[in-house]
Amino acid sequence: MSVAHDQSTAALIALDWGTTALRAYLLDAHGVVLDTRASSAGIMNLPRPAAEGGFDIVFDETCSAWLAANPQLPVIAAGMVGSAQGWVEAPYVTTPADSAALVAGIVRVTTNKGVTVHIVPGVLEDGALPNVMRGEETQIFGALSGDTTHSELIGLPGTHAKWAFVSAGRIERFYTFMTGETFGALRDHTILGRTMRAADQHDMPAFIRGVDTAKDAGHAGMLATIFSTRTLGLTGKLKPEQQADYLSGLLIGHELRGLNEVLAREESDLAGKTLRLIGNDALCERYRHALARFGCNDAQTVAHATERGLHEIALQAGLIRSTASAN
Amino acid sequence: MSVAHDQSTAALIALDWGTTALRAYLLDAHGVVLDTRASSAGIMNLPRPAAEGGFDIVFDETCSAWLAANPQLPVIAAGMVGSAQGWVEAPYVTTPADSAALVAGIVRVTTNKGVTVHIVPGVLEDGALPNVMRGEETQIFGALSGDTTHSELIGLPGTHAKWAFVSAGRIERFYTFMTGETFGALRDHTILGRTMRAADQHDMPAFIRGVDTAKDAGHAGMLATIFSTRTLGLTGKLKPEQQADYLSGLLIGHELRGLNEVLAREESDLAGKTLRLIGNDALCERYRHALARFGCNDAQTVAHATERGLHEIALQAGLIRSTASAN
Repeated sequence: MSVAHDQSTAALIALDWGTTALRAYLLDAHGVVLDTRASSAGIMNLPRPAAEGGFDIVFDETCSAWLAANPQLPVIAAGMVGSAQGWVEAPYVTTPADSAALVAGIVRVTTNKGVTVHIVPGVLEDGALPNVMRGEETQIFGALSGDTTHSELIGLPGTHAKWAFVSAGRIERFYTFMTGETFGALRDHTILGRTMRAADQHDMPAFIRGVDTAKDAGHAGMLATIFSTRTLGLTGKLKPEQQADYLSGLLIGHELRGLNEVLAREESDLAGKTLRLIGNDALCERYRHALARFGCNDAQTVAHATERGLHEIALQAGLIRSTASAN
Repeated sequence: MSVAHDQSTAALIALDWGTTALRAYLLDAHGVVLDTRASSAGIMNLPRPAAEGGFDIVFDETCSAWLAANPQLPVIAAGMVGSAQGWVEAPYVTTPADSAALVAGIVRVTTNKGVTVHIVPGVLEDGALPNVMRGEETQIFGALSGDTTHSELIGLPGTHAKWAFVSAGRIERFYTFMTGETFGALRDHTILGRTMRAADQHDMPAFIRGVDTAKDAGHAGMLATIFSTRTLGLTGKLKPEQQADYLSGLLIGHELRGLNEVLAREESDLAGKTLRLIGNDALCERYRHALARFGCNDAQTVAHATERGLHEIALQAGLIRSTASAN
């Protein structure tokens, strides 16, 4: 626990509660982070089952010190905590979804000590290929910071990478690419992993080679290109310690190739496009390099999108104003 | 062990020795199967390590009765037994590869009892995306049965599906789609498997729905469509017991979509095409249904391609003639 700021101005507890981790932020009324806490107690990793108070235990451990100092602090949470497997289900709001729709969809749960936790719903885009997000919608509104005028494309790399088309303050539609999870399954559970050797550091040329292969020779699709991870090794053209980065580049390259196909259908293109990325810095950096191979050199990484989004939604929900007046 | 024929006319022992299984055939000079044996002792599943005589043990168990009756029987083998992890490495021959090239590439290994085993090499297509096969080349020449005039496309569905372009008796080039293995990894090691329920029988409509989704809405690529296995479940549009067949259809659909892209670059198309399939009957039947969705209604499954190919190559290598004269 790091105490970097005076906590007397605390106005909000904001939780990013996902499948494998919980990140908690103590914010002031302007969204400045006063303190943070992290826990590995994601919703699939509770110390006790939900029915036995698992969520209450983790919430207490994480936030009780903050609440002891200020029992009136409002609490907001986003992520898988609002899923059917979460603390309480916050049903999806459907696209197009603006922040007002998220606010209207907030579901409340009361802890065993009487604290109300406001849970932000996820977003569903229904159709033949339905898409869902939980947590990313909050990050997107954090990146928008109240902007309701522009149209933009926002990428959220990760286990299940999202690409969202945002317009006039609304999430219009989005895609889910299972890039990160597919990479892990291929590396750990197929023949491709057998010839890989762990490397001390990221091999950027091998990564870029994978991206370029998907971009320039990926027309037969990912199922056809991934075998080259092995065959380039067999033919002495790719070292064992390069193969994981090459495969990572291949998959991210196929993701961007697919995104470009989506853009092509609306007469757009990654080349020359301006977009923003939200996520882990190192991963966003990889995506920036991959995007550059597709001619996109204007991809900015947005910092602190999660806590900004939680603050933004809490503001719109009136949580911060009412608490401030109670102080 | 089934003895269906008089074995006095035996002229060849033919082995299909792969990673997970060994199939052995006793053939007469015309390639008629007189007897068969099967073992689970694939090269990755030997009763003892290769260095401790594992291959000899399995060979003895499988073939000693046949050799006792006729010690002069020639022996030919194809598959992973000729890989770097096999009994002896038979280096790849490169495309374009005809049966004479395979014959020239045969490598011999002598068993601990002095029997010579002739191992057929695999085929390598070198380049930016190298491809390799071991065993499939023999099946392809079994399907050709000495035809050196036609051009055709041959599909070999499976863990690593192959699509080979054959012309004038040569394997010109081929693609490897890791469809079967990727399906297993996604089903068993990603979130997609968590909502699946095992079904009593194959659900053809769910499979076809997956194929059609890849065909009609797969432009963003496989990484983008597979998440629908989960989201169609979340939205009540796909039952848990349908999800595995749907995912299988999606992946095979992406394979055929990719193959169609390859064909498009040579101004061809699966629609209206005549092609042949080699493999497990049930899997070939699935592919025939999937191919029909792409307008390809003339896909014949070739029976007994493996033993025919081994017989064909043994004939060309002079193994059968010389043995027959020795009797």
